Amino acid sequence: MTNPTAAMLVIGDEILSGRTRDINMNVLAKSLTAHGVDLCEARVVSDDRDAIVTAVRALSSAYDHVFTSGGIGPTHDDITADCVAAAFDAHIDIRDDARDLLMAYFERRGTEATEGRMRMARIPDGATLIENPVSIAPGFSLQNVHVMAGVPAVFEAMVASVLPSIKGGAPLLSQSLRVDRPEGEIAGPLRILAEEYPGLSIGSYPFQQNGAFGANIVVRGHDGGEVDAAMVKLAALFPGETA
Amino acid sequence: MTNPTAAMLVIGDEILSGRTRDINMNVLAKSLTAHGVDLCEARVVSDDRDAIVTAVRALSSAYDHVFTSGGIGPTHDDITADCVAAAFDAHIDIRDDARDLLMAYFERRGTEATEGRMRMARIPDGATLIENPVSIAPGFSLQNVHVMAGVPAVFEAMVASVLPSIKGGAPLLSQSLRVDRPEGEIAGPLRILAEEYPGLSIGSYPFQQNGAFGANIVVRGHDGGEVDAAMVKLAALFPGETA
Repeated sequence: MTNPTAAMLVIGDEILSGRTRDINMNVLAKSLTAHGVDLCEARVVSDDRDAIVTAVRALSSAYDHVFTSGGIGPTHDDITADCVAAAFDAHIDIRDDARDLLMAYFERRGTEATEGRMRMARIPDGATLIENPVSIAPGFSLQNVHVMAGVPAVFEAMVASVLPSIKGGAPLLSQSLRVDRPEGEIAGPLRILAEEYPGLSIGSYPFQQNGAFGANIVVRGHDGGEVDAAMVKLAALFPGETA
Repeated sequence: MTNPTAAMLVIGDEILSGRTRDINMNVLAKSLTAHGVDLCEARVVSDDRDAIVTAVRALSSAYDHVFTSGGIGPTHDDITADCVAAAFDAHIDIRDDARDLLMAYFERRGTEATEGRMRMARIPDGATLIENPVSIAPGFSLQNVHVMAGVPAVFEAMVASVLPSIKGGAPLLSQSLRVDRPEGEIAGPLRILAEEYPGLSIGSYPFQQNGAFGANIVVRGHDGGEVDAAMVKLAALFPGETA
């Protein structure tokens, strides 16, 4: 009855140095929520072999699925595919199916098949390719780890390619109520409501607008009837607020 | 000679469900890079006691500093302070210094000191307060864990409050060159350059603009002279590109 669980692993020095802002996490989070897979944890690690291998092993054994982002391009700092292979002691080399995809693409575009480019055909034995409709070089799924590119347009396309192959559960439903009062004044009644519905997650997200404090109260759960019932009680607690 | 290391722990169901996009990671990453602290890892976990306690313990023992974001407000889902206390087996309750700060603030604003609001004065024994110039309710540092609010304006202000108390190392310097050629064509020379400078991190970040492929090559290191030297060689490899 419970949904499959998942973790995300973002690989990239550029995120940790602050040069680049990750935007793939939010894309994956929304897609998994809609698909009925619970994203339970996300990690960002640097382009470091030990860090990647350790994180892949830890997350792969703790969750039903792991989705990685980054580090599968043609340059020397792209080491994710080799690290995921190492995490599972799988052999990795240029694989015929991936090479054929790339060679056909390069031929159509008149692109040279450099050594760097052919690195993108390195796929571990036993892995299933993930289609990349944007720039062809594929991702792959090895056991429960789904390896995808970091370039946002490619990442998003690969998520769309791989999700249909993953069995989802009940989508996580959510409804929210905007309350134009400071969190400190609504905390008491909210706590009682949360205790009444242990099967729901009731979150309070404060904001400040034109100098006034308010909060968005979000009720999340897999049982739509229960979410509806909690929303009715919530609205009765704070009459006159905006749904 | 090496810089202090750090990890970030983001706490919040709203990030993992995709409802909210985290922006604090990038703020912290930039601040630490400038301060000479190496951000090595970041994790996002849900508002779950076991998940938070486990992550705090793991990161606290693996890195010199841990910075947390989220979960220290007045509502029932704000459990970070209690979890950090539990991670170190520290006693936690409303503490006089934090209560005095809050009571003085509430008095000035004519705000009621509700039970929820007074939760924000829960500070573990042995912790040092982190000043919050935005909304007064303080963060705290317990051992090597720095606990800060998730609201971006408050998080940023708390980072500015706590950083001067942390000994930094050499700032991570970076220079970049934009190369208007596909990564596949520059991967070979780049690899050789990276091998020549094992003390530097040389990253390639591809982009696509108006249908043409290019990459930003970023050279990072703590030795400014070495970064300069690598940039000269990089420019010679790809003459006519934009620095």
